[in-house]
Amino acid sequence: MNIDMIEAAALRLAGQARRTPMLSSPFLDRIAGRRVLVKAECLQHTGSFKFRGGWSAVSALPEDQRKQGVIAYSSGNHAQGVALAAQRHGVPAVIIMPADAPRMKIDNTRTLGAEVVLYDRETEDRDAIGTALAAERGLTLIKPYDEPQVIAGQGTTGLEIAEQAAEEGVTEADVLVCCGGGGFSSGIALACEARAPGLRVRTVEPEGFDDVARSLRSGGIERNNRASGSLCDAIVTPQPGKLTFPILKRLCGAGLVVSDAEAQRAMVHAFARLKLVAEPGGAVALAAALFRADEIEGDAVIVTISGGNVDAGLYAETLTTYGDEV
Amino acid sequence: MNIDMIEAAALRLAGQARRTPMLSSPFLDRIAGRRVLVKAECLQHTGSFKFRGGWSAVSALPEDQRKQGVIAYSSGNHAQGVALAAQRHGVPAVIIMPADAPRMKIDNTRTLGAEVVLYDRETEDRDAIGTALAAERGLTLIKPYDEPQVIAGQGTTGLEIAEQAAEEGVTEADVLVCCGGGGFSSGIALACEARAPGLRVRTVEPEGFDDVARSLRSGGIERNNRASGSLCDAIVTPQPGKLTFPILKRLCGAGLVVSDAEAQRAMVHAFARLKLVAEPGGAVALAAALFRADEIEGDAVIVTISGGNVDAGLYAETLTTYGDEV
Repeated sequence: MNIDMIEAAALRLAGQARRTPMLSSPFLDRIAGRRVLVKAECLQHTGSFKFRGGWSAVSALPEDQRKQGVIAYSSGNHAQGVALAAQRHGVPAVIIMPADAPRMKIDNTRTLGAEVVLYDRETEDRDAIGTALAAERGLTLIKPYDEPQVIAGQGTTGLEIAEQAAEEGVTEADVLVCCGGGGFSSGIALACEARAPGLRVRTVEPEGFDDVARSLRSGGIERNNRASGSLCDAIVTPQPGKLTFPILKRLCGAGLVVSDAEAQRAMVHAFARLKLVAEPGGAVALAAALFRADEIEGDAVIVTISGGNVDAGLYAETLTTYGDEV
Repeated sequence: MNIDMIEAAALRLAGQARRTPMLSSPFLDRIAGRRVLVKAECLQHTGSFKFRGGWSAVSALPEDQRKQGVIAYSSGNHAQGVALAAQRHGVPAVIIMPADAPRMKIDNTRTLGAEVVLYDRETEDRDAIGTALAAERGLTLIKPYDEPQVIAGQGTTGLEIAEQAAEEGVTEADVLVCCGGGGFSSGIALACEARAPGLRVRTVEPEGFDDVARSLRSGGIERNNRASGSLCDAIVTPQPGKLTFPILKRLCGAGLVVSDAEAQRAMVHAFARLKLVAEPGGAVALAAALFRADEIEGDAVIVTISGGNVDAGLYAETLTTYGDEV
């Protein structure tokens, strides 16, 4: 993994991914006690940064291989990112999802042109189904984060952050990144290392699922005790990736951790001050900027909002519970 | 009013107003039956296009006059736009608001540096208070739409629409604009006339407050019967402006009208598909694109989302009521 791969991904993504805006609000600055610049990656195609990695990976395949199609395991943002990337390439995509995934996510993925294969979490083996399908049809597996071309695609966000921060006169700052397996964080960290060395990535995770923060502290890969149970489902992964963790360890500051309630409060501030829909996992970095200000250094902080794919019901409940914040 | 004034406003706005993105979603295209390009002006500073007009008007004042300060009557988006423009110029702003305006709007306007003067709607005369204050302090009144430099500022949105539509390969389309007094619509129409003559503005209003649509039909200025009673409060005005209407009459197609419920349904689609917070009045153009498709012509339609300043309570209620749409 190096900056050249990210630059190459940026060339492939040109005209495909959106250059998402860097937003700000004096109201957020006041709460955070410093300037807050928000990279609005929820405005990316499919509503999360995952389209970048999906496009990067699909577009990097040799044409013969790509024509056979791709496969991914996901019920969430990675599924939609890969599905749209394949659809725009005109190649088949198979997405393996649990049969009890929300109907909306299944429908959305199908609308993006993918074949959705459902499996029963209790009785069927996801990997066996995927491996058999991949072999039978010659599909290439696109992993969600531990895959160099996926990391390179996510890293294109970092190239934009470096440019946009410089335009705002910010060259020294922590860059708070919503972190699951570490693809987004490591890609941005590599881009900043090369293009804006004064910007330092800090991972942000939900409480109870702080495998990356603990791994950064111990220096080795630590696992979460639980596999689910956070509102921030989009960024819950069992442990940092084998490819991503060494990058995070080399380049990132200490990991930050916020509660689900803080993530929800940040969603409300994004609603009121930025007019952006953030999902819980996409709001943890903003939450850290607003509510963990004393763990951050510098006159400015850069924040990613990584995605906005949240159910209307949960969003309404969040506004009802925490709407008094604003 | 002419294109030169809009170009001059664009120069003054450079580095101040955001160039808001043009967004899209295959899900919206499917409902509308054509390509839908969405100009996300809710992402403008202060959450609506009104900052453009505010900055344009304040920056156009001779320096001696500007230093004395500005005054505006508004409890809404225009207040915030003028307040921020004045704050950034380092000059005083007085905003006259009804004492029963939502506390949040009063607080927001104060946080943007304005002096808020409250009056009692029942017993006090707003204009008398404003006129006295303006005379006493030498303040310049910034009108919300019937003011050439305000129209010029709003028109800068049209310059961006012309460029962004061309980048998307769209040169012939209806441009649906959320319409109150007509400042936004007339500014965009003038910009399109000069820079993208294949783009034609269509005003969109809420049912019961369709003064512009009726005026366009009759050829003369028509008034609304009621002064309030729409969820789309941001775009409820008694009648089209004296400056704006002749421009609308010369350049716009037939006015479109949607119900409050359609505006709310469009808010839900903006939430789910674009990750944008739209206020009811800011969602009427998207509503027309989605639900009045047979009144629109062409393979593509351009839509403005004019603002996102909506209370958390109403937004939650809207998602709860219409969340099944998505």
